[in-house]
Amino acid sequence: MKLTILGCYSATPRTLTNPTSQVLEIRNHLFLIDCGEGTQVQLRKYKIKFSRIKHIFISHLHGDHFFGLPGLISTFRLLGRETELHVHGPKGIKEAITLFLKLGDSWTNYPLIFHELESTESELIFEDDTVSVHTIPLDHRVYTNGFLFTEKPQPRKLDIDAVAQYEIDRSQYNNIKNGANGVSKNGREIDNQNLTHDPPKPKSYAFCSDTAYNEAIVPLITNVDTLYHEATFLETESHLCQKTKHATAKHAAQIAQKAEVGSLILGHYSTRYKSIDFFKEEAQTIFPDVELADDGKSFEI
Amino acid sequence: MKLTILGCYSATPRTLTNPTSQVLEIRNHLFLIDCGEGTQVQLRKYKIKFSRIKHIFISHLHGDHFFGLPGLISTFRLLGRETELHVHGPKGIKEAITLFLKLGDSWTNYPLIFHELESTESELIFEDDTVSVHTIPLDHRVYTNGFLFTEKPQPRKLDIDAVAQYEIDRSQYNNIKNGANGVSKNGREIDNQNLTHDPPKPKSYAFCSDTAYNEAIVPLITNVDTLYHEATFLETESHLCQKTKHATAKHAAQIAQKAEVGSLILGHYSTRYKSIDFFKEEAQTIFPDVELADDGKSFEI
Repeated sequence: MKLTILGCYSATPRTLTNPTSQVLEIRNHLFLIDCGEGTQVQLRKYKIKFSRIKHIFISHLHGDHFFGLPGLISTFRLLGRETELHVHGPKGIKEAITLFLKLGDSWTNYPLIFHELESTESELIFEDDTVSVHTIPLDHRVYTNGFLFTEKPQPRKLDIDAVAQYEIDRSQYNNIKNGANGVSKNGREIDNQNLTHDPPKPKSYAFCSDTAYNEAIVPLITNVDTLYHEATFLETESHLCQKTKHATAKHAAQIAQKAEVGSLILGHYSTRYKSIDFFKEEAQTIFPDVELADDGKSFEI
Repeated sequence: MKLTILGCYSATPRTLTNPTSQVLEIRNHLFLIDCGEGTQVQLRKYKIKFSRIKHIFISHLHGDHFFGLPGLISTFRLLGRETELHVHGPKGIKEAITLFLKLGDSWTNYPLIFHELESTESELIFEDDTVSVHTIPLDHRVYTNGFLFTEKPQPRKLDIDAVAQYEIDRSQYNNIKNGANGVSKNGREIDNQNLTHDPPKPKSYAFCSDTAYNEAIVPLITNVDTLYHEATFLETESHLCQKTKHATAKHAAQIAQKAEVGSLILGHYSTRYKSIDFFKEEAQTIFPDVELADDGKSFEI
């Protein structure tokens, strides 16, 4: 998995920072997570091929997570897209996008399929052979979901030297990758362990923004490899969290600690602070493995 | 008048160019014309004070002229705006903005006043002591208006040396500025022409984008000081104009010539061309006084 941050700052516009949007690459998939204003320009800047995006996940309908979507959907048409685009987001998203297209007498020349969310329980919203995506209900001012991306186990990897040594016929390779034992040229059964390597451990990524401190998400994200958790404020401004339904860097670290995640990425910084390094310092008083999101930064998960 | 181009390229997103938006400063007014995606960041970049914008004029509801408006309206709230904001644009604009605010459970803490346009005739849509604004009905794929900004005459300027020489009492100054003759200390009537200078000639600016070649606008913009006219294509692509309802650089120059305008500014360039200089060269074969809009460029009118 590879995560690329297109934008990770909170709403106030600035010349050099962008509102929330991320691209998550999982084998053959390129998922877009949130789509603040300017996302399509960020996609261009980081040379991400528009046509590879087939699923967009929108956490909530605040502008800094969503106002780039009408433009991106229009651009897909300009670029001659013909393949399906799936948009997963809160109920109302279809009405909003449809109205904007209608007012511009515009259309999509590709199938645009909305999957509107309204459950307050975690649910499976996408699944194929490679990955499953579940919602993570968050605690924000409007209906908001995080998203949990879980890679499925890959087939075992063939040990090329071993299958040659045991003179295993190629016709058995697929079965062996799926866990079967092999049969050598002279009819001897060879244990699968001797013919294969373990595949890479399936990876998982949880995106949690925007949200107040919410322990209810801990069971949903326990042991994920990487957690992105919003940290709008530092503890000095924690009195603003309840009203705005945002979290501090310390809150994010407490969730990471309780969920025993592999690593924590912070983002959604308020622009009131002079340096984002303060967020890392605060979180590391609770949880050691902290990274800072920043526009254009990539993370291997 | 001072015109600042925030963006002047057509819809396809690029890293270093922006869709249509302009700021027109006329004495105490700062008018925003169109609001493509990213306009609020451009306003920040060129250090234009958000609070000075009280009127926004939207030509039509295509994304590259309009999709920055929901974000800008939300940002005004974040910045604590309390003064009225007037939005002039095609019918439907109120429904669109209202839906986006509602979906985000957002609100404006300032009066947001929509003036929806649906006439296909030119009409007066704003007027005060300084300026009047009329629509210029354009020929595009959706209902579209250009805007004509006409400065009102300023009072005559007092000739300080002359009023001193004739010993004119200060109590007469305002009447003299408004055209009255003066009376000297010894009771002699002094002709206004001897006591004043002509005020600066009132200026006018016409914004015409997006539109196909449309001679019907000529009487509306005759003799304007500066005409901004879209030039999406060069003549080599003129076959695309009728379907897309856009104009070439030559079309823009022909309109400028027929309307006998002072100068012509071109913009809304398709991103297919390697250099925007081609647009100037083509237009100047018809009309001499041509300038090229570019993002961040300012023009004194």
